[in-house]
Amino acid sequence: MELLKQRIRQDGIVKGNDVLKVDSFLNHQMDIALFEEIGKEFQRRFANCGVNKILTIEASGIGIACITAQFFHCPVIFAKKTQTKNIDGEVFATQVESFTHGRIYQVIVSKKFLGPQDKVLIVDDFLANGAALEGLIDIVAQSGAQLAGAGIVIEKAFQPGGDRLRAQGVRVESLARVKAMSEENGVEFAD
Amino acid sequence: MELLKQRIRQDGIVKGNDVLKVDSFLNHQMDIALFEEIGKEFQRRFANCGVNKILTIEASGIGIACITAQFFHCPVIFAKKTQTKNIDGEVFATQVESFTHGRIYQVIVSKKFLGPQDKVLIVDDFLANGAALEGLIDIVAQSGAQLAGAGIVIEKAFQPGGDRLRAQGVRVESLARVKAMSEENGVEFAD
Repeated sequence: MELLKQRIRQDGIVKGNDVLKVDSFLNHQMDIALFEEIGKEFQRRFANCGVNKILTIEASGIGIACITAQFFHCPVIFAKKTQTKNIDGEVFATQVESFTHGRIYQVIVSKKFLGPQDKVLIVDDFLANGAALEGLIDIVAQSGAQLAGAGIVIEKAFQPGGDRLRAQGVRVESLARVKAMSEENGVEFAD
Repeated sequence: MELLKQRIRQDGIVKGNDVLKVDSFLNHQMDIALFEEIGKEFQRRFANCGVNKILTIEASGIGIACITAQFFHCPVIFAKKTQTKNIDGEVFATQVESFTHGRIYQVIVSKKFLGPQDKVLIVDDFLANGAALEGLIDIVAQSGAQLAGAGIVIEKAFQPGGDRLRAQGVRVESLARVKAMSEENGVEFAD
């Protein structure tokens, strides 16, 4: 998605070789006009898939998921992160390891909102190691819902998550795939 | 807002005398068509206020804020909750006491995204004791921005936050004000 790549080149800040700060438009301050274009593009890519639920994870996926849902005319569910170990039986729960924060947390979704009648599109801002996305896929599987695929805004294609999940047969559509980045040369895209 | 009150009556679940679960449409599963009506209503109430930034707090305020921002044609900033004590100088920070979770956390917003040139509308899903809203108001004050007011989806009017902030001169617009509730009689609205 060219508009997104331009915006990353213009306003993204690279730290070291693996941190890309996009907090001026994507995940702290949020450019809603850009989100509308992102949502349209996800809709174009997953048109005619029968998507009736969008699933994301708090916090930075929520805004993108909500704007995207307008183009699918469906509700959004956001998975909640919790450090509580004793989860009651009313939720689907899975464990996710956060590489950024160096800890493992539980991710939960109420059983009321996902089931075999659903066709789910997962939406998130970043895909790197794929831990969060794998957690969401596990929750969809537990619920018996069908997975249409995952719509990702920025994939760090030099990290293994995207390729591993595609190899497992998951349809992963990333709007900007970063092949390499450095403070000197900025961001290089995969395509 | 009649549509919202109807929805709360229909799908809200009262636990005891002070917990109102609206997770089927507001803060876990999110009904985006309803959010559009909420956003329109906030825009109607804060029209001609010169709002150029919407501020909310993770996680459940984000979706409502993003849909609302489409009607104001402005970006959204979401304040982040952190338990880190050593906050660097690049953020506005304030402390918020969570009555729900029984702890105090830091709330931060990057200094890059709020300043004296801004006119801010705060948006959140719930107002009860007012601790989160006071924290956001403090951040707006630290930044030198002007506060247009706060747009709240559900106010627990039997708790003191809304009245205390109005007495301080803050314009608080709540779309549904709950006067009382019980498992036997459901929800009673203030107006």
